[in-house]
Amino acid sequence: MLPRGRPRALGAAALLLLLLLLGFLLFGGDLGCERRELGGRAGAPGCSPSQLMPRVSPDWRLRGAAALDGDPLAGPRDRNPSDCGPQPPPPPKCELLHVAIVCAGHNSSRHVITLVKSMLFYRKNPLHLHLVTDAVARNILETLFHTWMVPAVRVSFYDADELKPQVSWIPNKHYSGLYGLMKLVLPGTLPAELARVIVLDTDITFASDIAELWALFAHFSDTQAIGLVENQSDWYLGNLWKNHRPWPALGRGFNTGVILLRLDRLRQAGWEQMWRLTARRELLTLPATSLADQDIFNAVIKEHPGLVQPLPCVWNVQLSDHTLAERCYSEASDLKVIHWNSPKKLRVKNKHVKLFRNFYLTFLEYDGNLLRRGLFGCPSQPPSGAEQLQQALAQLNEEDPCFEFRQQQLTVHRVHVTFLPHEPPPSQPHDVTLVAQLSMDRLQMLEALCRHWPGPMSLALYLTDAEAQQFLRFVEASPVLAARQDVAYHVVYREGPLYPVNQLRNVALAQALTPYVFLSDIDFLPAYSLYDYLRASIEQLGLGSRRKAALVVPAFETLHYRFSFPPSKVELLALLDAGALYTFRYHEWPRGHAPTDYARWREAQAPYGVQWVANYEPYVVVPRDCPRYDPRFVGFGWNKVAHIVELDAQEYEFLVLPEAFTIHLPHTPSLDISRFRSSPTYRGCLQALKDEFHQDLSRRYGAAALKYLPALQQPWSPARGS
Amino acid sequence: MLPRGRPRALGAAALLLLLLLLGFLLFGGDLGCERRELGGRAGAPGCSPSQLMPRVSPDWRLRGAAALDGDPLAGPRDRNPSDCGPQPPPPPKCELLHVAIVCAGHNSSRHVITLVKSMLFYRKNPLHLHLVTDAVARNILETLFHTWMVPAVRVSFYDADELKPQVSWIPNKHYSGLYGLMKLVLPGTLPAELARVIVLDTDITFASDIAELWALFAHFSDTQAIGLVENQSDWYLGNLWKNHRPWPALGRGFNTGVILLRLDRLRQAGWEQMWRLTARRELLTLPATSLADQDIFNAVIKEHPGLVQPLPCVWNVQLSDHTLAERCYSEASDLKVIHWNSPKKLRVKNKHVKLFRNFYLTFLEYDGNLLRRGLFGCPSQPPSGAEQLQQALAQLNEEDPCFEFRQQQLTVHRVHVTFLPHEPPPSQPHDVTLVAQLSMDRLQMLEALCRHWPGPMSLALYLTDAEAQQFLRFVEASPVLAARQDVAYHVVYREGPLYPVNQLRNVALAQALTPYVFLSDIDFLPAYSLYDYLRASIEQLGLGSRRKAALVVPAFETLHYRFSFPPSKVELLALLDAGALYTFRYHEWPRGHAPTDYARWREAQAPYGVQWVANYEPYVVVPRDCPRYDPRFVGFGWNKVAHIVELDAQEYEFLVLPEAFTIHLPHTPSLDISRFRSSPTYRGCLQALKDEFHQDLSRRYGAAALKYLPALQQPWSPARGS
Repeated sequence: MLPRGRPRALGAAALLLLLLLLGFLLFGGDLGCERRELGGRAGAPGCSPSQLMPRVSPDWRLRGAAALDGDPLAGPRDRNPSDCGPQPPPPPKCELLHVAIVCAGHNSSRHVITLVKSMLFYRKNPLHLHLVTDAVARNILETLFHTWMVPAVRVSFYDADELKPQVSWIPNKHYSGLYGLMKLVLPGTLPAELARVIVLDTDITFASDIAELWALFAHFSDTQAIGLVENQSDWYLGNLWKNHRPWPALGRGFNTGVILLRLDRLRQAGWEQMWRLTARRELLTLPATSLADQDIFNAVIKEHPGLVQPLPCVWNVQLSDHTLAERCYSEASDLKVIHWNSPKKLRVKNKHVKLFRNFYLTFLEYDGNLLRRGLFGCPSQPPSGAEQLQQALAQLNEEDPCFEFRQQQLTVHRVHVTFLPHEPPPSQPHDVTLVAQLSMDRLQMLEALCRHWPGPMSLALYLTDAEAQQFLRFVEASPVLAARQDVAYHVVYREGPLYPVNQLRNVALAQALTPYVFLSDIDFLPAYSLYDYLRASIEQLGLGSRRKAALVVPAFETLHYRFSFPPSKVELLALLDAGALYTFRYHEWPRGHAPTDYARWREAQAPYGVQWVANYEPYVVVPRDCPRYDPRFVGFGWNKVAHIVELDAQEYEFLVLPEAFTIHLPHTPSLDISRFRSSPTYRGCLQALKDEFHQDLSRRYGAAALKYLPALQQPWSPARGS
Repeated sequence: MLPRGRPRALGAAALLLLLLLLGFLLFGGDLGCERRELGGRAGAPGCSPSQLMPRVSPDWRLRGAAALDGDPLAGPRDRNPSDCGPQPPPPPKCELLHVAIVCAGHNSSRHVITLVKSMLFYRKNPLHLHLVTDAVARNILETLFHTWMVPAVRVSFYDADELKPQVSWIPNKHYSGLYGLMKLVLPGTLPAELARVIVLDTDITFASDIAELWALFAHFSDTQAIGLVENQSDWYLGNLWKNHRPWPALGRGFNTGVILLRLDRLRQAGWEQMWRLTARRELLTLPATSLADQDIFNAVIKEHPGLVQPLPCVWNVQLSDHTLAERCYSEASDLKVIHWNSPKKLRVKNKHVKLFRNFYLTFLEYDGNLLRRGLFGCPSQPPSGAEQLQQALAQLNEEDPCFEFRQQQLTVHRVHVTFLPHEPPPSQPHDVTLVAQLSMDRLQMLEALCRHWPGPMSLALYLTDAEAQQFLRFVEASPVLAARQDVAYHVVYREGPLYPVNQLRNVALAQALTPYVFLSDIDFLPAYSLYDYLRASIEQLGLGSRRKAALVVPAFETLHYRFSFPPSKVELLALLDAGALYTFRYHEWPRGHAPTDYARWREAQAPYGVQWVANYEPYVVVPRDCPRYDPRFVGFGWNKVAHIVELDAQEYEFLVLPEAFTIHLPHTPSLDISRFRSSPTYRGCLQALKDEFHQDLSRRYGAAALKYLPALQQPWSPARGS
C-alpha cells in the first residue's frame, strides 16, 4: 500500500532509495529483482533457483555473467544473470518491430500462420515480417497476407532458393534440411539498413506481447549481438548416449528457436567469415550438423562468448522430448513463448503438454478475421485495398433491405491456397481440372469424387479456422484422400451471413493449372470414364485453339442415397427408363437443363451444338482463361446462369458430348438455402442483382445484350437450389 | 541500454537516483510515470492529456487528488492522479482473487460466461467467484462450472431473491431492474471474513490479467474503500437535454461496471446505513434511479469523497452511446477492460466498435475446453471429480485400438442447460416432452419439428462454442423457433473424435420437466396428432402409475426430400402401399423394428403388447424416471438397442399404439458415421463394448440377463446408422 501523507511518504521513499542504492551496489545496476521484491513478490521468476545454471564450467559461468554486464565480477556467480535483468522499458508506443522467419513448403506455411496469429493477438506495435520462403510458401503467404489485410503489418519476401548455395555445402542431418541453416545468412540477406531483428522458428507460439521480447535488446552491452535462451536439454553436454558427440557449446548451449539479432554489429564483426570458419573447422572432425544452424551458432558462441546475451528462459520454453523446461515454467509467473522443438511437435510426451497444447490450439483455431484490427493511436498506412474497401462499406446504407448482399459482395475473404501438400500434375496440352467449391457439410463427397475423377482437381472450401483443422484431420484419416497429391484444396475463410458461391468458384478456377477446366458442383459424381473422355474430346475438337466452345456434360440426378452408379451410358439410360434416375432438376426446374436436349443425347453418336436459352445452366468444360463467375451473386440463385449468359455473350458455342454424363446425389438442403428460400426480401434482392447484372452486360456488349433481357426479368423460382 | 562496466554504471546509477529523488519530491512518491519516462516511453497513458478531467469543480479536483494520496497539495492539478499512479506490484504468485457478479436469467447467464472466459484466458491467479443469482442463472451456472472443471476456480452462489427486499423499495428505471441494485448490498451479503472483492457487471470483457486490477488495491489510502473509473459520458453533468436532472455526482461521476471494494472498510464505515440514508434523501426530490446502483454510489461518493479511489480509465472503457472513451483508449498503450454499457450492447454505434467487438467475439467463440488448464506452480485443490477422471484417463493405454472409445466415454463435456430463454409448461399429470439430440448439421430439422410437435421439447445440441453462437442467430432469425418458449435447448460442448450420442440423450432426458418423455431422434417428424394422442393414451393406459410400460410409436421412412406428410394413418398406409414410404430401415435393417409387427398395426384398433426380440430398437414413450442410456456407447451402433434391452430387463411391457406414427426423413450420412462404417477396428471395439455391457447386465440381473447373450454376440451390421 502507498504511504499516505507526506511524513509516511518520506519514510517509504527513503527506504525505497536505500533499497535501490543497495540493489545497485550489489547487482551492478540490475534493478529487476529488487523492484519485484519491493512489490513483495515471492519467488519472482527471474531469480528462482529453478533458473540456476548447474553443471556449467566456472569458466562459462564467468563468461556468462560477463556476457551480461561486461564485468566478470559483477553479479552473484550462481544464477543466470539475464533472468534477473531489470524489466526493460517497453519499446515506445507505435515503434516498428522486425521479425524474420524462414519458411518452406505447405506444412510449414500452415505452422507459420499459427505463429503469426499468436504474435498478432498480443502485439501492440506495428510489425514488419521478413519471410525467407521457397516458391510454394511464397505463393501461399503472399495470397494470405494480401487477403488478410491486417493493419500495421508489413511483409517482405526473400527467395530461399537464392540462398541455398550459401549453405548447401554444410552436411546437415536435421529434419529442417537446408532451410534449417538459412538463419546463418540473415545478416547478409536482410536489408543493410536493418539493425535489429527477432528471428523465430516456425514451431513457436507466443503467449505474450512480442514487444516485451524486443525490449530485451536494451540488455545488450555494446559488444553483444545475439540474444538467446539456454538450451533446455542436456544434448550439448554430450552424455546422452555412448559416443554421443555433439557440436561444441558453452555448457548446455543455446537454443536458436528464438533469436534477438543485432544485425549491424554482426556485420561489423564480420559474421559471414566468422561462422564459416568455425563451421569448416568443426566439420573436419564432425560428419555433419545434427541441429542445423543451432550447432553452428553454439560453436561460434563458444569461441566468442562476448557476442551472446542470455535471455530469460520463459522466452523459449522448449518442449523437446527430454526437456528440462519444467524447471523454468513451474516457477515463472508467466509463460512468454512456447517452442515445439520436438519432431513429434504436439504429440510430444510431457506431463504438462495438454496445457501447452491449449495455448497452441487457441491460435490454431482462432478466427483470423478478428485480427484485422488496427492499433489504438498508431497511425499506419492501411493495407493495399483496405482504404477503398472501407469507403465502399461506409457508403452502404444499413437500412437497405439488401444491405447483407451488398456487404457480402464487398467482403474480402482470407484465402489460404494449397492448404495441404499438393503436387501439380506434369503439364499436358489437353489436361482438364475439375473445379468445385464446398463447405464442411459436403466433406463426405470428397472420397467418392476422388474415385470418380482420377485427374487433377482444384477445390475451394468455405471454412472457419477451426473447421479448417477438422478438414485437415479428415483428409489425414482418409487413405483415399491422403493418397491424392493432384487435388488442390484452397481454404476461403468464412465471413458474413451469405454463401459467396461465385467468389469461391473463382478462387478454385484461378488456381487450376491445366489448360482446361470442368466447372462442376460438389454434389455431382462424374462418369468414371469422364476424365479420359474429356481429354480425348478436347483434342479431337481442337477446343480452345481451333474452336471457342464450351463442352456440355449432361447432368442427371438420383433421389436415393444408395444406388449403384451406372458404369456406362447404356446402364444410365436403363436407370433413366426405370425411373431410378431423372434428368437434373426434372421435377423443380427442367428449364435449367432442357436446352441440352436429352432426347437427342440418347441417340447422339457425335458432339452436337445447342443454342443458349433463358435459364440454361449446364455443367461445361472450357479453357482455363474463360470468363470468371460474377461475384455479385452471393447466397443462392442465378450464380451459374449468369456465367452461362456471359459465355454466350462472348460467343462460346455450346457442344454437348454424347458419352459424357454426371449425376447429382441427394443431400439435406443447406442452412443458407433453407434460410432464404422462403424469404420475399431475398427474392427482391436477387432481382435487383439481376437488373444490375444486365446493366453491366449492356455496357459491355451493347445491343447484343438485349437478348438476355427477358430472361433476366423472369422472377426467380424459390424451388431452385443454385 | 544498460551501463557497461563499473564507471559508466556508477554514472548512470547516480543519474537514476537523482531522477528518482526528483520525481519523488515532485510527485510525492508517485514513481509510476517517472519509471516509464526512465524507460524513454513517450506519451505514457496515465499522463496523457486525454485523461485530464475538464469541467470538474476545483473542489472535486482537490478531493480527487486528495483521494489518491491524502494530500490536497500533492500532484499537479490538471491530471487524474490515479492514472499516473505507480505501476503497483502484481499480487503474489498464487494469491487468491475474489470476484463478485450479479446475474439473473438465461441471457445474462450467457453473457457472464463470456466475461468469465475472458477473465480465465488472461488470469494467472486462483479465482473465487461470488455469484449472486436467481434460480434460473444458478441452475445454468452450477451445471456449467461443475462440468467445466476449471482448476483453481472456486464458485459460491448467493440467492438474489433473498436480497430483493433490501432493494425493492427503490424505484428504478434502469433496464437491469432490481438486480441492477444488488451491488449495494454486497458488503452485507458476502462472507464477513471477505475483505476485498472486485465487482463486475455481466457486460464486461477483459483484455488483460485481472491480477493487474486487483493490484490497484495497493493504491488505496487507509480510508479509501471504493475503487472506480470515471464515467466516460456527460450524463452526470446534467446538460444532456432540457430538464435533464441526473443524480448528484462528483463532476462526471463514476461508472460502477467495475468496482474495487474494500468490504472490511465499508462495513466499519457503516455502509448499510450510509447508502440508504443518501438514497432516501435523494428520492425525496428525484422520482427514481435512472442508472440503478450507479446513481446511488455516486450520490454517496459526492457526500463522502474520501471513500473513492479513482482508477485508470483503461480499466473500464465504456462503450455507451455517447461515450467519451476514445480520449482514454486512443492514447493508452493498452486496453484492460471493455464495458458494453449501452443497452444496444455490441450494436452500439462507435467508430471503433468493430475493433472492440473483435475482443468480445474472441471470447464469445473461444473453445472453453482450452481454459481447463492449471496454473503453473500454483498448488490448488482439483475440481470435484477431476482427480478420479485424471486417474481413469491415466490408466488408459494409448496403444489399445479402442483407446479413442475409452477416452470418449470418460470425457466430461461442458454442459450449458437452457442456453436460450425457456418457459417450462405448467405441470400437467399426463404431459409428455419430446427428447432428442442433434448437432449443427441437423438445425434445419428444428422448424419442421416445431410444426409437428406443439408440446414441450428437451433437445441436447452437440456444438463448439462458435457453433453455439451460430445456433443462437439461427433461432433468433426464425419466427417459428423464436415463438416457442417451451423448447429447451441444452448445449453440450464438443470434445473428442466420437459422437457421444447417449451422453447427449441423457442430458436432454435429465432436463425434461414433464412426467413422461417421448424418446425420439432428430431426423423423425411425428404425426401432427401425436402429442395429443400420446397424452390421451398415457391417461387411458394409466402409464407409470398402474402399468410399467413403454408405448411404442411405429417408425417409417421416406427416401425423398420432398414429400407431403400424411395427415392421418389412412394416408400413411396409402403411401406405404404406393411405395412412397417404407417401414423404418426396411432395406438395411428390418430387424430393428420388425417386432413392432407392422402387419398387425395396420389393422389394430387398440394398443397391443409385443415381446422384446434381439436388436429391437423402437421409439418409445416412458415415464421420465426411466433408465438412462448407457454412455459407453459412443459414435454409432447399439446405443438405442442397449437402452431397449435395459427397459426389457427392468420388465417394461412394450405396448404399440395403433394411431401413433413417426416418419424418418433422408439426410446426408454424417461425417462421423461415414468415417467409421468402413472401419473393422470400429466394429471390433463396438463388440468389446457390447461384451462389457453384457457383463454389467449379468451383474445386475443375474440369470435373467442370459436371454440377451445371443443378441449381444451377433456382429454389428455396418450398414446401420444408430
